[in-house]
Amino acid sequence: MKTLIKNAWVLTMNEQMEQFPNGYLMVDDEKISEAGTMDSLPKAVSYDRCIDAKGAILLPGMVNTHTHIGMIPFRSLGDDYPDRLRRFLFPLENECMNEQLAYTSGKYAIAEMQLAGVTTFFDMYYFEQQLAEAADEMHSRALLAESVIDTVTVDVPDPMGGLQYAEEFLPKWQGHHRIQASIGPHAPYSNTIEVLQKADALSKKYDVPWMMHVSEMDFELEKYRKERNQTPVEFLEEIGVLSSRLVAAHCIHLTDHDIELLKKYDVKVAHCIGANTKSAKGVARVRDLINAGVIVGLGTDGPSSGNTLDLFSQMRMFANFHKTYLHDRSAFPAEQIVKLATIGGAKALGLEEQIGTIEAGKQADFILVETDSVNMFPIYDPYSALVYSANAGNVRDVFIDGKQVVSGKKLADADLAQLRAELSEAMEQCGFRRKALQALNK
Amino acid sequence: MKTLIKNAWVLTMNEQMEQFPNGYLMVDDEKISEAGTMDSLPKAVSYDRCIDAKGAILLPGMVNTHTHIGMIPFRSLGDDYPDRLRRFLFPLENECMNEQLAYTSGKYAIAEMQLAGVTTFFDMYYFEQQLAEAADEMHSRALLAESVIDTVTVDVPDPMGGLQYAEEFLPKWQGHHRIQASIGPHAPYSNTIEVLQKADALSKKYDVPWMMHVSEMDFELEKYRKERNQTPVEFLEEIGVLSSRLVAAHCIHLTDHDIELLKKYDVKVAHCIGANTKSAKGVARVRDLINAGVIVGLGTDGPSSGNTLDLFSQMRMFANFHKTYLHDRSAFPAEQIVKLATIGGAKALGLEEQIGTIEAGKQADFILVETDSVNMFPIYDPYSALVYSANAGNVRDVFIDGKQVVSGKKLADADLAQLRAELSEAMEQCGFRRKALQALNK
Repeated sequence: MKTLIKNAWVLTMNEQMEQFPNGYLMVDDEKISEAGTMDSLPKAVSYDRCIDAKGAILLPGMVNTHTHIGMIPFRSLGDDYPDRLRRFLFPLENECMNEQLAYTSGKYAIAEMQLAGVTTFFDMYYFEQQLAEAADEMHSRALLAESVIDTVTVDVPDPMGGLQYAEEFLPKWQGHHRIQASIGPHAPYSNTIEVLQKADALSKKYDVPWMMHVSEMDFELEKYRKERNQTPVEFLEEIGVLSSRLVAAHCIHLTDHDIELLKKYDVKVAHCIGANTKSAKGVARVRDLINAGVIVGLGTDGPSSGNTLDLFSQMRMFANFHKTYLHDRSAFPAEQIVKLATIGGAKALGLEEQIGTIEAGKQADFILVETDSVNMFPIYDPYSALVYSANAGNVRDVFIDGKQVVSGKKLADADLAQLRAELSEAMEQCGFRRKALQALNK
Repeated sequence: MKTLIKNAWVLTMNEQMEQFPNGYLMVDDEKISEAGTMDSLPKAVSYDRCIDAKGAILLPGMVNTHTHIGMIPFRSLGDDYPDRLRRFLFPLENECMNEQLAYTSGKYAIAEMQLAGVTTFFDMYYFEQQLAEAADEMHSRALLAESVIDTVTVDVPDPMGGLQYAEEFLPKWQGHHRIQASIGPHAPYSNTIEVLQKADALSKKYDVPWMMHVSEMDFELEKYRKERNQTPVEFLEEIGVLSSRLVAAHCIHLTDHDIELLKKYDVKVAHCIGANTKSAKGVARVRDLINAGVIVGLGTDGPSSGNTLDLFSQMRMFANFHKTYLHDRSAFPAEQIVKLATIGGAKALGLEEQIGTIEAGKQADFILVETDSVNMFPIYDPYSALVYSANAGNVRDVFIDGKQVVSGKKLADADLAQLRAELSEAMEQCGFRRKALQALNK
C-alpha cells in the first residue's frame, strides 16, 4: 500500500532542517519511503492512494513526553486551589478510579492527542495494562509506565505494589511494534531506595525508558537538603539510578551540578511548561539543559494539571515563558521549539531511530496542519505559524505507522461522541461527577 | 424580532457572578430582554427564532482592549528577531501599507476576532477611517484610534499629522451606535507635549476614550529617568493628560507611585500578556493594579506582536504568567480572568453601561462556546473550562447588538475565503509577500 501526500509544506525536522515548501511525501505501508519537492516527484510514480495536502504544513507527529491519560475525569476540577491534590484529587481517585474508568479515560485522552497531532506519548498512571490496551486499540505509539508509590493505590493492594504490577506488565508488551510497557516511580521521595533501584533494574532488563517526577516540588528539595545535604538529582546519582533510560519529568529546580549530572548520565528531561506554570511552581532551566547537551522533550502533564493534551499550547507557552525568563526575544526561535516537540521528544523517549523526522526509512508518523483557518494567514515562516498562530484545532490529518488515525479533523476509526459516552458512563457508575461537585461545593 | 437561546450554561458576569447552568437568554432586537434558568422560562413565551445551545457556555462577547488590525500582513514575519521593528516592520510598512491593504486587513482581522468571540475591540493604527468602515460593515463594536507619531507615516504627509487626521476623523463617527472614532498618540516619547495635550483635549471634546502605549519600553523608562527624573506615568501626569478617558496599553514597568497615579486619575490599562512576554519585555503588575482599584482589560496587541487576536490564548497565558510571577496557584482564579476578558474590558473602554455582562437592558453582545469538542470535557467549572481548556476554535455562535455574526463556527454574513482573497490581492498589488521574504532572507 503506497500513499502519496502531495502539495504539502514539508518540514522534515532532519539534522539540516530541510523543508520543501511545495513538497510531497511517499508512504510505503508503515514507513516513509521518500520526501522531496513536487518538482522532483517522478512523473511515472505509482501509488494506491493520493492525498492533496493543499498547502497544509506536513511535519513529524508530535511527541508528548509526559502525561497521565487516566485522569480526564479530573479536568477543570479545582484548578485554582493550592491544596487541590489532597482536597479533590487523591480522595476522588481513591474512591472512584477503576479499570473501566482508566481505560475509557485513556481512549478519550488518546483521541484528544491524536486530534491535536500527538502521535506518541509517555504515560504514567495506574491500570497501565488497560491504558496500554487503549493505546494499542487506538493505534497510537506509546510508552506506559505503571506508577509506584509508597501508599496503597487503586490498582495494587500494598504500598509500592506498582513494582510487582510492573514486573508482570513489562514482559507482556515485549516486542510490540508501537507499545512499550514501563515503570514510573512517582518521585524519589515517595519510594524507597530499594524500589527506585529495582525500577531502574527492570527498565534495564527490558531495555525500556522509565519515568519519574524529579525536582518538581519545593518540599522535595527541602527534604533532600535537610536530610542529606543533597539535591534530588544528586541523591539519585548516589543510589545509582541515573541513566540514559530515565525520563525525568519536570526538573523545575536544578543546580548547575544537577545539570552536569543529567548530562553525564544522559538522563532525558520531560519539560511541562504549561502545568509547571499553572501551578506556579516555576520555569525549568531548559536553555541551560540544552546548552549542556541534555535531551529535552515537551510534555503536557495530565489533563488535571495542564488541562489540554496538545503540544501547540505548550509550544506557545514555552516560547513566551523562556523568552521572558531569559529577557531575550531571540531565545528559542520557533524552529527550535518545533524541534523539541518532534525529534526532541523522540530522542527523549529513545525513539529517534524510528520517528521524529520526515526521512526515508522512518516509521510514517506525521501530521498535516491546515493553513485555511483564519489564524493561519499569512505564513512567511511555517515554524512561526506553528508556534505562535496555530492551535490544536488546525490539525487536519494524522498518520501513525502509516495508518491514518485522523482525517479531516475527525477520528478516522473511532467516534468521539461514543468515546465520550463510554467515559461518561464509567464516570456515572462510580458517581464521579456527583462526588466531584460535592467536594467542590463543600 | 425576538430570539430565544435555550439550554445554555449562562454566565452573566454580573456583579454577583450569577450563572444559570441550564439557562436561557431572550434577545429583543438589539438588546437583552431576559436571562434565567430554563425552569423559570414562561411556558407561553413568544419569540420569532429559537436557538438550542445544547449545553454550550453563553457569556458576554469578549473585549479586546488593544490591537492593530491593519497589521495582518505582518503576521509570522521575523517573530524571533530582536530588531524586527526596524528590520522588517517599519520599512515594509512605509513601502507597502495603503488604504486598501489596511481596509482588507481590517476586515480579515475583525473576522478573526468575531470567529474567536471578540465582539468589541479598541484599535490603533493608520487609515483608521477605512478601519472604522471595515468595522461598521462587519457589524462589529469598535473604538478606532488614529495613530500620531513624530514621523511621516503612510497616511499623513507630516510628522504628527495623525492629529489633524483625527480632528477630521472623530466628528465623522459621532453618534454612531457601535463605532467610536478616537486618537492614539503612539507613545509619550514619540510625540511632543503639545500633541499629547491636544490628543487629550480632542478625546474630551468628543467624549471618547483615547489610547497610548505607556511604560512599555526599557528605553522609554530610561529616557524619562535621565531627562526628567520621572517615570513615563509621572511625566504624563505633569503635562496633565491623565484621565479616565485614557486607555494606557501595556504599562509593563510601573512603580508604586505610577499605580497610585493611574488610580487617582482613573486611567484604564490594556494588558497584553501574550505580546509582552513573546517580546521578552516582562509581566505587568496586574494584581497590584487591580488591588489598587485600577480598571484592567485584556488585549492581544497586533497580529505581528501577539499573532492571534483571540482572548482565549490570552486568558490562559494570563493565568500561567501571573500565577508563576506571584508564586501563587490561587492567584487570579479562572472566573476573575473571564471577568477581565468581558466586563473588565467593557469598563476599560467606558462601555460597561452597554455591554460586558448578560443583563436585561444591555446590548445583545454575547457568544456561545460549544462543549462538544474533545478538549471541553468534563466541565465542573465553566470558567476553568474557558480559561484552561478552550481555544478560539470552540466558539460556535457570536451575536453583536442582537445580530448573529458567527453561526456554527462560520461567519454569518461574510465569506472568510473571500476576505482572504481580497487581502491577498491587496498584498499582491504592493508586492508585500515578495518584499517580506526578501527582507527575511537578506
